[in-house]
This record gives sequence, C-alpha cells and structure tokens, in this order.
Amino acid sequence: MTEVEGSGSNTAMIETIQKAAVIGAGQIGRGWAAVFATAGLETMMTDPAPGAVEAGLDVSRDMIGQLAEAGLCEDPHAAQARLVPAPDVATAVRDAGWVQECGPENVACKSAIFAQLDAAAPPHALLGSSTSGIPGSQFLADLPGRERAIVMHPANPVHAMPVVEIAPSDWHMPDFVERCRAALTQVGQVPVVVNHEVPGFVMNRLQAAVINEAMSLVGRDVISPDDLDRVMEYSIGMRWAFIGPFATMDLNAAGGISEYTQKFAALYAGLGQDLRTSEPWAEAALTRTAEARRAALPLDRLRDRQSWRDRTLLRLRSLMENRRQDDPGAG
Amino acid sequence: MTEVEGSGSNTAMIETIQKAAVIGAGQIGRGWAAVFATAGLETMMTDPAPGAVEAGLDVSRDMIGQLAEAGLCEDPHAAQARLVPAPDVATAVRDAGWVQECGPENVACKSAIFAQLDAAAPPHALLGSSTSGIPGSQFLADLPGRERAIVMHPANPVHAMPVVEIAPSDWHMPDFVERCRAALTQVGQVPVVVNHEVPGFVMNRLQAAVINEAMSLVGRDVISPDDLDRVMEYSIGMRWAFIGPFATMDLNAAGGISEYTQKFAALYAGLGQDLRTSEPWAEAALTRTAEARRAALPLDRLRDRQSWRDRTLLRLRSLMENRRQDDPGAG
Repeated sequence: MTEVEGSGSNTAMIETIQKAAVIGAGQIGRGWAAVFATAGLETMMTDPAPGAVEAGLDVSRDMIGQLAEAGLCEDPHAAQARLVPAPDVATAVRDAGWVQECGPENVACKSAIFAQLDAAAPPHALLGSSTSGIPGSQFLADLPGRERAIVMHPANPVHAMPVVEIAPSDWHMPDFVERCRAALTQVGQVPVVVNHEVPGFVMNRLQAAVINEAMSLVGRDVISPDDLDRVMEYSIGMRWAFIGPFATMDLNAAGGISEYTQKFAALYAGLGQDLRTSEPWAEAALTRTAEARRAALPLDRLRDRQSWRDRTLLRLRSLMENRRQDDPGAG
Repeated sequence: MTEVEGSGSNTAMIETIQKAAVIGAGQIGRGWAAVFATAGLETMMTDPAPGAVEAGLDVSRDMIGQLAEAGLCEDPHAAQARLVPAPDVATAVRDAGWVQECGPENVACKSAIFAQLDAAAPPHALLGSSTSGIPGSQFLADLPGRERAIVMHPANPVHAMPVVEIAPSDWHMPDFVERCRAALTQVGQVPVVVNHEVPGFVMNRLQAAVINEAMSLVGRDVISPDDLDRVMEYSIGMRWAFIGPFATMDLNAAGGISEYTQKFAALYAGLGQDLRTSEPWAEAALTRTAEARRAALPLDRLRDRQSWRDRTLLRLRSLMENRRQDDPGAG
C-alpha cells in the first residue's frame, strides 16, 4: 500500500500508486488489469467464478501484447509478469492502493462487493466502480468509507480507448476528485469529471444522440445502414477521433467558436428540433440494420473483427500520441 | 469530354471522366480541385472575383502537397500541373465531363449558376452542387437539364474527409445515381446516397445530434467543454473514425447487432428521450464554450491548428487505408 506524501501544504500531494486490485474477470476487468500492469503496478485480479481469473488474465496478457505491438508498452514481458491471480477479495485488496470494481451491472451486486472492499482494503485505498450507468449514490451512499469510493467509468476496450468518466456523488470532496484524476493520469488513462449524476454519464449520452438519430434515419429509409456508417467513418468520425465537437466548431470559423455559433446556432437548433422524427427503435430499423450487418460480416468473423478493431484502435492511439506532440493547440 | 463506353447491355457502362471544372474558388472548391487533379483529371477552376482563382489554386496545390506527404498522392508535381485557371464559366466547362458547383450558399446564386452551367457544359457532363444544406429541388427543378444536375455534398476539408452525400431529387433515375457513385469512386471519394430530401442531409444531422447534446450538457454544467471534447476524442470518436454506429453495435455483442439491440434498445431509447433537457444554445453554454476554447488556444494560433488538423486527418486516412486491407469485415 502507498502513502500520501506530504500533507503540510494547502495543495494535497498526490501519491504514486504501486499496487492495484481488479474485482471481476470480465471484459472490463481484463482491460483494467492490462492498463495497470502496463503502467508498472503490481496487479491482482479476483473473481468468484471457477477458472475465471485464469481465463481473464490470459486475455489481459494478450492486450498487453497488443499495446506493445502498437508501440504503447515498452516491456510487455515485465508487464505481463505483474499480473497475479488472487483466490479471494481479501487477498486481492490487502495491499492495494487502488481497487477497481468490475462486477455485474446491478445495484445489489455492487452494494455487496463494495461492502467487502471497504472492509478489507487499506484505509487510504481508492475504490473505483466501473459501472456504465448506475449512479454512485444508488450503491455507495451507505458505505462507511463512501468518501473514498467513487464511480470511474471506462470506455470499452479499456486498454485501447483511454477516457475514464469520474462521476462524483454529492458527498465527494474536490481534493478526492483531484486524487482520482491523478491516479488515472498515472496509469496513462484520460480522466474527465461528470459534475452531476445524469443518466448515461456523458459518453453514452453522446453515443445515444447518434444512435437514436441513425436508427431513425434508417427506419425512414433516408439512407442504408452501410452508407450511414460510411458517413461517420469518412467524415465527422475521423475528425472526432482527435478533435472534439467544441474544438471542431472552433476551427471551422476564422474567428473561432464565437463566430461559428453566431453563424450556425439557428441552423443546429433547427436540426436539433428535427431529429428523431420517427421512432428510432421501430421494427423497420431493427430489421434493416440486422440484415445489412449480416450481409457485410458473417457472424463467424465477428471475433476476428473485434480483434482487428482493438488493434486498429491502438494504432490510431499511437498515431495520435505522435501527432499531438506537434499540436499548436496543446498546452 | 468523355463518352459513355458501351450502351448495348442492360447494365449501363460507366465512363471514365477525364476533365473536371470547379465553379467557385473558396475552401470547398479548392478541395475538389485538389481531389480531381490528384485523381488524374485535367481540372479548370473559375470564379468571378478578381484574383480568386489564383489564390484558390495556390491552396489546392498545397493540399496536393499534404496528400503526398501522407502517402496519398504519388506524383504531386504532375497533379499540380493539372490545375488550370479559367477566365469564365464557359471556358471552364467547355470540355468537362464533370462540373462541380461550389458557389455561395443561397438559392438565387445557385439557380443562376446552374442555368449557366446547363447551357454551356457538354450534354453528357455531370453537374454536381456542393450545397451543404439546400435541397436540390429548390434550385434545380426548373433546369432544362435537371436530370444530370444533382446535389453532391462533400465534407470539409474535401481532400481529407472523402465522404460525399449524393442527394437525388425525385426526378433522378437510379442509373444516374449509380453514375454519380462511380464518378466519385473514380476520384477516390466515398459516395453515399441520401434517398429523400431531409434537412441537413445525414452528415450534419448526426453532427447536430452530438453538438446539441454537448451544448446542453455544458449549459447544465454537467461537464466542462474541455472534458466533453476529451470524452469524444479518447473514446467514441476514436471508434467512429473507422467503425460507424451500426458496425459498432454489431461488434459489441457476441451475437452481433440483433443481440445488442435486444439488450440495449430500451436503454438507448430512454437516453434518447432524456437528451437536450436544457436549451442547447442558451447563453451559459455559449459563454463557457467560448471561454474554454480561447483559454486552450489563442486566436492567433487557429490557422496553424487548422493546418495541423488537415495534416493529421490525412495521416489518419492513410493509416486506415492500410488497416482496412486486413479488415475481416471488408468484402
């Protein structure tokens, strides 16, 4: 376990975390384990299902291999050697400075797991939940150590898409949120803070905005599913891969975002009102999208394509790390 | 001018276009000229404003240089030499197989330009409009040659983000739409077809879906503008750069998109209903986003960052061309 170094100043010093525990050996837990181990942390994983940890760590090791292949992990063998199975929660968290919960997505399970973690983990350890949609107040509010337990929602795959949404509840102190930011930065992830509890946090709300309109357009037969995907892949998706929506508006007018919004607010407000003019999840859209996907990719090639996607995401991340060094907008 | 080769079969043969004309020397026209010349077409540009064509072609030549830098143009000097200024519309279109209008974004201007183009261009020439939002029926319906005049809306920058929305009006024949697809494919762009006239076509509707929710979230102080951009850049934007929303859902369930929509339709429908819970274009959001952008990037570095963005888009495009060769979902 690690200690907070220095506490005599107003600015709390941030610790360097040396050991992590991953609770749950599913897809998200595997990704976290790969991230922790790559960042140099001794990483223990536990899961109550027989054989789950061994299977999970196998995949984490593969993920580390993928990171190395993309130039994002210098010594994959050393990283892989930092992954250790643990027989139970108590063993996994005993010396951990950071415990990341990756259990089933329901309130009762998460409440039970956090009660265990809070009792067994060192007093200063950070307890994070990977929940993708349950507000922290629903399963952390009654925890004795709730001030050090918080939602930290990653993207999937965790090792390839580094953003993590820190979603504090109303009892969390700003210093603690800063400590979470620092911990995520330490392991190479990209922290963002969701100030209030809103359904879907931010990532899935933006995703929902696009998916609902996409389904509606296909349901109305405005465009085929394949062509809609092409629109995203060969235009706005390319841009959003490294320039978010606000920075995009900023670059698309000589006077920056103020000029852009002055010119186009009415247009976008109007389009906003016109979105989802048909029920997005109507049968026609479900049928058309399913038929289009199966025509494009037989189900037995799905796993190969997932692997190709993950490797491609990592190449993209590597390219962007390189390009960002020359970004006139960085720092 | 080019001829349609073969016409004795049911399947119309598709011509190879050899000469293009670009009407308008602004940002969009410059991009089209770079695309045409890179693809081997003799390209004439015209614009009524004094000096506009020379300035425009200078930028087109730079764009070709950028394409070459990213490995997307083999012989930039030859491509640059294919760019030719024309003193007027009649000269520009005289021998063209493809005329692309890139004039001011209003109905009266476009109507007047298309009347000229239709009168002066060879009978078989394809007439495309780059309008980003005006339905073709508003300025093409009364044209004698309206069956060969059509909306082909590119992204911006045209040479870096290759998708083009073909938006036929109700008088266009399917064969003609296929001819447009072929022409765009010939010059290395990625055609999609928008079947019905809808405000914003598809690209800007998807963009509006995200921007409206993003503004609403910032206006409600759910997240800072910088962190919202990070969410996009380091998670879903990375994915959409090469896997559209439907292919994404397909890869995120073992049974493909059918299983995914069965599991998550209710969740996304619910989030869809919850979007834009505050007025997106309220003063608070406008102020916060403007302040955040100016703190991140002084206005005098905007042009440098635009250039960096274009070069980065081209690197990304080049990376993806390479990766797509190994895509188990391609073909």
